[in-house]
Amino acid sequence: MPTRRAFLATAATLGAATVASAASMNSATTPAPLVHHVFFWLKNPGSKADLAQLLAGIRSLAAIETVRGIHVGVPASTEKRDVVDNSYSASEILFFDDTAGQKPYQDHPLHQKFVAECSHLWSKVVVYDAVPA
Amino acid sequence: MPTRRAFLATAATLGAATVASAASMNSATTPAPLVHHVFFWLKNPGSKADLAQLLAGIRSLAAIETVRGIHVGVPASTEKRDVVDNSYSASEILFFDDTAGQKPYQDHPLHQKFVAECSHLWSKVVVYDAVPA
Repeated sequence: MPTRRAFLATAATLGAATVASAASMNSATTPAPLVHHVFFWLKNPGSKADLAQLLAGIRSLAAIETVRGIHVGVPASTEKRDVVDNSYSASEILFFDDTAGQKPYQDHPLHQKFVAECSHLWSKVVVYDAVPA
Repeated sequence: MPTRRAFLATAATLGAATVASAASMNSATTPAPLVHHVFFWLKNPGSKADLAQLLAGIRSLAAIETVRGIHVGVPASTEKRDVVDNSYSASEILFFDDTAGQKPYQDHPLHQKFVAECSHLWSKVVVYDAVPA
């Protein structure tokens, strides 16, 4: 198990690498790695059990070596606007060092296990991969 | 202008607050704030000038007080798969402390200026707001 100090060091590195602070954006763009956004729509959106299984599956992906950070989410209750899609059931953001980090992730046994065990739960999945502009 | 030390402190805080390290996810979920994902499709996707104007506009949003972090992206050249949507022109992730932080952002003069100056550039925009699961 990682020490708290090791975690904080990792978090700090991730912060510096993946997220530019608002203040810093005024003068420079901070380098950031590949962002892998995924949105899932459950076949049974009202099923708490299905959602729990999906979220547990998403969280299991964090153990894959090339995954540097993860954010697991559900729709926020922000203001309803035409452009806001809150119809999805769960979201994930995975951070990788670079595009090359994606390939071993896709092929990793934990990712294959996730797809094998959870893909029957969703009716739709949309992926957006982004690199720093 | 912020000092480098202030920036690093902000980055470290953001990292701890918004991104759980892969290692830490094995034992606990780290609290994380509201994630505001936005994807833009340009009317003229081949126009470098239009893309540059849109990206500059997105970056200007970082100066809004309730924006705690930003990632500005373009599609990555990851493996082509049916579920991957790489048709968008630009992406942004904005981090807020909570759902309440979104409202002053939407109403902020810099956000209104961005919409006024850049909305003619895009044909479609999709927003996903997520809170930690």
